[in-house]
Amino acid sequence: MHFKEALPLQSGACIRAYDLSYETYGVLNVDKSNAVLICHALNASHHVAGVYLDESGQVKAKSEGWWDTMIGPGKSVDTDRFFVIGVNNLGSCFGSTGPMQVNPETLEIYGGDFPVVTVEDWVDAQARLLDALGIQTLAAVMGGSLGGMQALAWTLRYPDRVRHAVVVASAPNLNAENIAFNEVARRAITTDPDFHSGHFYKHGVLPKRGLRIARMIGHITYLSDDVMNEKFGRQLQAPAFVAGQAAFPFKYSTQDVEFQIESYLRYQGDKFSEYFDANTYLLITRALDYFDPASAYGGNLSLALAKASAKFLLVSFSTDWRFSPARSREIVKALLDNQRDVSYAEIDAPHGHDAFLLEDARYLGVVRSYFNSKVAV
Amino acid sequence: MHFKEALPLQSGACIRAYDLSYETYGVLNVDKSNAVLICHALNASHHVAGVYLDESGQVKAKSEGWWDTMIGPGKSVDTDRFFVIGVNNLGSCFGSTGPMQVNPETLEIYGGDFPVVTVEDWVDAQARLLDALGIQTLAAVMGGSLGGMQALAWTLRYPDRVRHAVVVASAPNLNAENIAFNEVARRAITTDPDFHSGHFYKHGVLPKRGLRIARMIGHITYLSDDVMNEKFGRQLQAPAFVAGQAAFPFKYSTQDVEFQIESYLRYQGDKFSEYFDANTYLLITRALDYFDPASAYGGNLSLALAKASAKFLLVSFSTDWRFSPARSREIVKALLDNQRDVSYAEIDAPHGHDAFLLEDARYLGVVRSYFNSKVAV
Repeated sequence: MHFKEALPLQSGACIRAYDLSYETYGVLNVDKSNAVLICHALNASHHVAGVYLDESGQVKAKSEGWWDTMIGPGKSVDTDRFFVIGVNNLGSCFGSTGPMQVNPETLEIYGGDFPVVTVEDWVDAQARLLDALGIQTLAAVMGGSLGGMQALAWTLRYPDRVRHAVVVASAPNLNAENIAFNEVARRAITTDPDFHSGHFYKHGVLPKRGLRIARMIGHITYLSDDVMNEKFGRQLQAPAFVAGQAAFPFKYSTQDVEFQIESYLRYQGDKFSEYFDANTYLLITRALDYFDPASAYGGNLSLALAKASAKFLLVSFSTDWRFSPARSREIVKALLDNQRDVSYAEIDAPHGHDAFLLEDARYLGVVRSYFNSKVAV
Repeated sequence: MHFKEALPLQSGACIRAYDLSYETYGVLNVDKSNAVLICHALNASHHVAGVYLDESGQVKAKSEGWWDTMIGPGKSVDTDRFFVIGVNNLGSCFGSTGPMQVNPETLEIYGGDFPVVTVEDWVDAQARLLDALGIQTLAAVMGGSLGGMQALAWTLRYPDRVRHAVVVASAPNLNAENIAFNEVARRAITTDPDFHSGHFYKHGVLPKRGLRIARMIGHITYLSDDVMNEKFGRQLQAPAFVAGQAAFPFKYSTQDVEFQIESYLRYQGDKFSEYFDANTYLLITRALDYFDPASAYGGNLSLALAKASAKFLLVSFSTDWRFSPARSREIVKALLDNQRDVSYAEIDAPHGHDAFLLEDARYLGVVRSYFNSKVAV
């Protein structure tokens, strides 16, 4: 959808004219009371559920929506009942206006000049999309990780337009360690000689080295220690062991892959660097850094959340060390301080932060129960 | 000290002739029974204690030994009583033979051709140094982190030559997450265009970008979440706030420093890249990856440690998530399975892995008590 009216940003800048890519699932009811907005995290898009078909009607390979386990006909967020909207955020590289596109003011590719966007800016852009779709009030807004921050921001910025907020594996802000990991990833990208201050497109290169490192770091923080040990442990990629000859089956190289975890991380880094935009990576990690609704209230989250009138479901995962359960409980406490209606589930799952994207019966069951029993249409 | 005889390495390669830099503190007694060997971790050297003086007898700035809080006259490891030896490991960049030096076989700088060394190789080289000093048996071998692994390896490789082993903030091997962090750091270095397969010296460049990233990653893993939040939290470096004007005092930049933690990490990265050798970084992290005494025993650490006859003190720190207390307890358990004499202290300290280098009365007290009451000379 194209938006002609400029969007003013938190930074004071604005985006002149822009497009938002979105997908919808299910049918908007006559009252327009069954809309559920899904907000995405770092590496995702408007393609939330379902699969894409090619010209001959065949399912395209790897075209599953990123939350397809959660959303669809008969699923936890049931598209037979709800009208679900997935929207790609501004600054992304998956369809909505972002740094890879042409700046209508200069007629050059934005690159490093794309304005810094915040969680609140994204929420404002999403609200305009709802305006255009004729939806005044959301039955629910929902997201995981950075998407959860957007859901929380919705309840503060447009309290009258949200009846329920589902905030999964999220936090009221990043702590120092979270910012630190983001910063290392950004430095890997911006110090890559192919970055050219974000204007690499016109140099015909991509800062893939930096993106690879950024993704490898990210991946470590998405997984738990436990699941890494279980999945990879100290298993070798291709043991150089010759029976009866070597006590230690290593290649004795600092640069070759020895352990499976190394191979896995390199593969993830390589794959990511082929499709993800470096400027988008910088923008999205910065939006994460900046998000902090309590900051305007001297750090008092309870005061900050007084504005929210929605009902809440919060979900966290026991082994998530990126956004630990303690961070979700901060939000729960602040909402309870305001006598808000809050449900909270702490899922005992081994997969770390990634758990919010995975199939887990208890997790999917909690969300299903919440939507079935609490979210009226 | 120069060693003429070639040192055979675990990899099957050997180092033809080599030097080891070492320092000693205190006086070796007539029985030669009071020697304590200190093994160093990643970013350290033979300069374990004391300070350097300049020509005029003045203390040089920042010349304090890396374990000076622990070792010296009247300190926990009392150099009035013990003869303490600090030795720089092979492959290091602080004096002993390493990749920055000339390969006597080719008369070129080793660079990326320096052979891969293991913890066991270091221990073998250290044993030769003791031979040359006429020391048959160590009163104690001691180290933190990777240094603790060397102390453990001593008890397995030369069980008759070690009476006590003090293993601080260490682990019986790296887990998948530890290897993962090492691998990302190595990839940052080896994919730096200035790395030139480790032969950057002859190109007149240094892979500083990669070293900076490697150090930033390392630093995050050395600190605890708690101490990062306490020291830096979300504090801004230079708030762009203009009274009454901005609700959010940010610069809105993806590349400028906003938060103090960013500034701290960049500073640490810059400083490190000025003095540390990239090939040494690769070698030392690989030695960490490879260390795994249980691997030759089907992963059974109790079987592996049956060889050790020394008495042990193990120390861990509650907030160390790099080498958590659980990893030290694995060693304790394996030693107890063999009815060995083991003391173990878990120090409640907020500083993460770094705690082993810091002044902490309880920690220093535990080591002092152990040396005073158990280590006879």
